Amino acid sequence: MDTLQNDLFLRALLRQPVERTPVWMMRQAGRYLAEYREVRARAGSFMQLCTNPELACEVTLQPLARYGFDAAILFSDILTIPDAMGLGLSFADGEGPQFAKPVRTAADVARLSVPDPETDLRYVTDAVRLIKRELHGRVPLIGFSGSPWTLATYMVEGKSSKSFAKVKAMMFEQPQLMHTMLDTLAQAVATYLNAQIAAGADAVMVFDTWGGMLSHDDYLEFSLRYGQKVRELLHTRHEGRHIPTVWFTKGGGLWLEAMADAGYDALGLDWQTDIAAARARVGDRVALQGNMDPITLYAPPAVIRQRVDNILRSFGHGSGHVFNLGHGILPDIDPAHVGAMVDAVHELSPQYHRPNDHDGKSG
Amino acid sequence: MDTLQNDLFLRALLRQPVERTPVWMMRQAGRYLAEYREVRARAGSFMQLCTNPELACEVTLQPLARYGFDAAILFSDILTIPDAMGLGLSFADGEGPQFAKPVRTAADVARLSVPDPETDLRYVTDAVRLIKRELHGRVPLIGFSGSPWTLATYMVEGKSSKSFAKVKAMMFEQPQLMHTMLDTLAQAVATYLNAQIAAGADAVMVFDTWGGMLSHDDYLEFSLRYGQKVRELLHTRHEGRHIPTVWFTKGGGLWLEAMADAGYDALGLDWQTDIAAARARVGDRVALQGNMDPITLYAPPAVIRQRVDNILRSFGHGSGHVFNLGHGILPDIDPAHVGAMVDAVHELSPQYHRPNDHDGKSG
Repeated sequence: MDTLQNDLFLRALLRQPVERTPVWMMRQAGRYLAEYREVRARAGSFMQLCTNPELACEVTLQPLARYGFDAAILFSDILTIPDAMGLGLSFADGEGPQFAKPVRTAADVARLSVPDPETDLRYVTDAVRLIKRELHGRVPLIGFSGSPWTLATYMVEGKSSKSFAKVKAMMFEQPQLMHTMLDTLAQAVATYLNAQIAAGADAVMVFDTWGGMLSHDDYLEFSLRYGQKVRELLHTRHEGRHIPTVWFTKGGGLWLEAMADAGYDALGLDWQTDIAAARARVGDRVALQGNMDPITLYAPPAVIRQRVDNILRSFGHGSGHVFNLGHGILPDIDPAHVGAMVDAVHELSPQYHRPNDHDGKSG
Repeated sequence: MDTLQNDLFLRALLRQPVERTPVWMMRQAGRYLAEYREVRARAGSFMQLCTNPELACEVTLQPLARYGFDAAILFSDILTIPDAMGLGLSFADGEGPQFAKPVRTAADVARLSVPDPETDLRYVTDAVRLIKRELHGRVPLIGFSGSPWTLATYMVEGKSSKSFAKVKAMMFEQPQLMHTMLDTLAQAVATYLNAQIAAGADAVMVFDTWGGMLSHDDYLEFSLRYGQKVRELLHTRHEGRHIPTVWFTKGGGLWLEAMADAGYDALGLDWQTDIAAARARVGDRVALQGNMDPITLYAPPAVIRQRVDNILRSFGHGSGHVFNLGHGILPDIDPAHVGAMVDAVHELSPQYHRPNDHDGKSG
């Protein structure tokens, strides 16, 4: 196993001292890069790109060649698990994901079983192994999954939704059926992430993209509860290393206190959540990852730098912050603007990590 | 002027004692009602319905004939102001609002002027006068407007948006231009709401539908600041009556403390915000209006009743709560389910308003 040459990201997630704030970006391997669009065209379809370990590896590494990112993230989709469960995932142009066989009845739920990652999702674990090899220990590799609730929204709706009427109707009318489904999904997510860890992932992140559409009580019962179950099932010791874990509920800034007790090492923050207030609320229980408004990247580099500065200053002194956007980068962003963001984090953050400042006190 | 036969809504907004919790529903005059769809078809287009005071009056009163709502709300659109500014509002089928002349440049902003409601928006004030007459004092009438920021999002984007890239780009790159635009809009919104008050509106509500898409700092600077300016310009004393005011930022639950200081009598709450926690945070500064998940109305009546009970119990004893959904009702809801919600509020809420319980203490 390679020793990591740059482990800033892992140390920040564990709130250990760092020399500067690490930075990566959600969807950093994506359409804003011409070299990504070239590979995507070569692959044929988005799913053909996801399921081809060589191509998935190639696009995972692309942003590292351009920018000083402190982590790589596996190129994949959040819906690989329901696809492996036999629901038939496809991506219609401009329409987002669709399932040929959505889950609507008790019989549909009863048919769901936990996929075996090394057979049913082999293309993912193969990609993790290949990326780890090609990284040569430059930076850590992040594995990821959608959260149980977020997977359930797509599985019941059958596609993207604005109102989540079908999945919430099941939740309101048949809560026990929903719990059965979420329990299976929690086992599937943990099994999947454990396979990514066994294949070499250095950290894992759970994307609860649609938890923020729930009421407070429903969030605790139908999303976070299964996030906690996933966490309990994760193998966070692997070959002597501690594997940091991140939980991210988009739109969940109201519920940070509850999330901080779910057992994860760090929480993702969307851009609506003030990071200084968030840090005060979670205290020293978790690290924070975020949280610049992705739209900031349309602005000129000087404005981007100012906004980076605001967030670094807002978090304040000490470790426990991984710089990121509050959501994925949009496809029509100028790649030079990403460079401006990364450079600003590299240049402006060391002042917040002077010796004796790593006790987590806010400056 | 008629004396109101039912002023529960106004008293609750002012946190004065009430016998039970008042209830109304965002988009209560809407497509879920067959009688609305009939008038809508007769009108021809949505804008023809909005701009016809007789038809607007008819649909405003429809839900009151069916349900025991404690307030009527003017049937109109949030985008009447930019339309009166000359931007050319239209509604493409299934596409939402569109402006023929979006605002993109300093010259576009310079051309904006504050409409005179009694000439440029006469159809609105005529509708308010007509509805007031036809209500015969049964319940109060709510006037409303979009917030300056929310109007600006549509005016710059030219239509609905998911990312708000254009309006945020203007905010990031030309903040002074955005401030100029928002200042004009704040004057326009206040002038418009004052005209609705003069025409007979008993309360006014500002819908900040897209404030929740901003970061914390940007929300304070570009949305709430102009909400406060609107509030300062409102004439809340009219013919001896106090006109209560409501501010609602969808997705703004993180920022309730700041909103509570903006001068409004009440805050709208989306369904993500726990109403018990919200009440504890705002204390006795404002009343709260909300906040059942609109999707709950797909559930069977027994589930709806349980959810109503949860929210009433969560708010607790004392005045200062107006029951509502956390967002507008969806068009395919069964009207009988709305009745179940309203009946549950009528039947379950009196226990929270026993004498000597109106001191605002939570039970």
